[in-house]
Amino acid sequence: MRMSEFWYTEKQTPNIGITLKISDIIHSEESEFQKVDVIETNQFGTMLVLDGMVMTTDKDEFVYHEMISHVAMNTHPNPKKVLVVGGGDGGAIREIIKYPSVVKAVLAEIDGRVIEVSKKYLPDIAAGLADPRVDVQVIDGIKHVQDLKDEYDIILVDSTEPIGPAEGLFAKTFYQSIYESLKEDGIMVAQTESPFFNNDLITRVFKDIESLFPITKLYLAHIPTYPSGVWSFTMGSKKYDPLQVPQEQLKTTNTKYYTPEIHKSVFALPKFVADLLK
Amino acid sequence: MRMSEFWYTEKQTPNIGITLKISDIIHSEESEFQKVDVIETNQFGTMLVLDGMVMTTDKDEFVYHEMISHVAMNTHPNPKKVLVVGGGDGGAIREIIKYPSVVKAVLAEIDGRVIEVSKKYLPDIAAGLADPRVDVQVIDGIKHVQDLKDEYDIILVDSTEPIGPAEGLFAKTFYQSIYESLKEDGIMVAQTESPFFNNDLITRVFKDIESLFPITKLYLAHIPTYPSGVWSFTMGSKKYDPLQVPQEQLKTTNTKYYTPEIHKSVFALPKFVADLLK
Repeated sequence: MRMSEFWYTEKQTPNIGITLKISDIIHSEESEFQKVDVIETNQFGTMLVLDGMVMTTDKDEFVYHEMISHVAMNTHPNPKKVLVVGGGDGGAIREIIKYPSVVKAVLAEIDGRVIEVSKKYLPDIAAGLADPRVDVQVIDGIKHVQDLKDEYDIILVDSTEPIGPAEGLFAKTFYQSIYESLKEDGIMVAQTESPFFNNDLITRVFKDIESLFPITKLYLAHIPTYPSGVWSFTMGSKKYDPLQVPQEQLKTTNTKYYTPEIHKSVFALPKFVADLLK
Repeated sequence: MRMSEFWYTEKQTPNIGITLKISDIIHSEESEFQKVDVIETNQFGTMLVLDGMVMTTDKDEFVYHEMISHVAMNTHPNPKKVLVVGGGDGGAIREIIKYPSVVKAVLAEIDGRVIEVSKKYLPDIAAGLADPRVDVQVIDGIKHVQDLKDEYDIILVDSTEPIGPAEGLFAKTFYQSIYESLKEDGIMVAQTESPFFNNDLITRVFKDIESLFPITKLYLAHIPTYPSGVWSFTMGSKKYDPLQVPQEQLKTTNTKYYTPEIHKSVFALPKFVADLLK
């Protein structure tokens, strides 16, 4: 008897895709904002898919969640109040609350269904959401930061791709609101797509953030299930330079990807990426 | 009228694959050693495929070819004689001959058809093969190094995957021959697959090379068309430490990926990769 094979295939651009063998479609729904699927893959375990785009998987989520959070968390000497915009799966929150300095971590996720689905099907990723320091708000992140001043030490923009509900999270007006919502020594980090496929976006966002923040830097990480396998993060910082952090301030905090050496090395960019920022 | 769409899909493991929209199958043959295909892709331009595995593409070949060669070429203060085992597309040779110190660069490729097909369909990659310092030999690299002593400054193992014709290029006996073929201050670099999918191979090869060379280090680069998008290279060095190279010795030599900063930063490994080498 020949077995049927089922595959999830995602066009990451019109011309390239990733395909993963799957054993089950665990959950599928249309939320108010997007299509939400949870799929069991053979290679990467349980996978969360929003609007047909891989958001996270059990096996490689650690890279994204550590790298969007620890670089900023270790650049700031004493992060107490942190905001995650998007990030409904809870992975960034889980990393943030590893820091004893954190008094409050707010999650502003527009789609409550992403939070609920993640809690149910990706419990290891959503684990941090139950921490008493975490304030989960089902709210548009843009509205959340609109009238805030001087509130947060760190803001992470853990968004989906810049189409659909996350489009406004790549706008300069949003970065301006973030700037104002941050304390005078605050830091923001946004996920900013692939340097192989999203060059124009990376250049534009970098210039926007650079026009607001005195210290703006881009760094990279290897994420196999994201388009091209390499992902960029853009940091805007009001005071602290991630490359000037004293070595003894860098903590490892139980990670699988991030290390004190990685903290600095990820800012050394391949020439073609550095050229995007000129 | 709806247009037909053609896609090349490669299972990179039994459970995950890459799929690329193609406009043409330019060339297809069975050589003595393997299936050789040249495909025109929309995303990555012309692509060389051996035995159903992407070897190189016009658009991302620069990463692999620069990173397999420049790290060693800049670690050695005066590389004169260099051997590339495999690498029939000529990309590594093209990078090596950018160094004026090079007097002779030998290509030992077992499959002459790969050389000819690359010259015809990937001329920008094969460009260096016509240089008068280059000695192209259609020969088994294992045999080439078997009886050599004290011959080369640098040997690069630019192999296909460790199945089929390249299997012996991942064997400890081969690394032993390389060790002996190198001068007393020689350096070897081998491509050693993906840290997400080939953990056992990386660990085993690292230990083998480490048992021969006093300085053994692994480094990574982002290669979108290779499995997982991140690729490892293992360096064995008899004398020179790539992290101790004086900054003024590091050259940029007209690259798109490699820089003097990349030279050092690529050795800072994500924790899960560093753990593979313990």
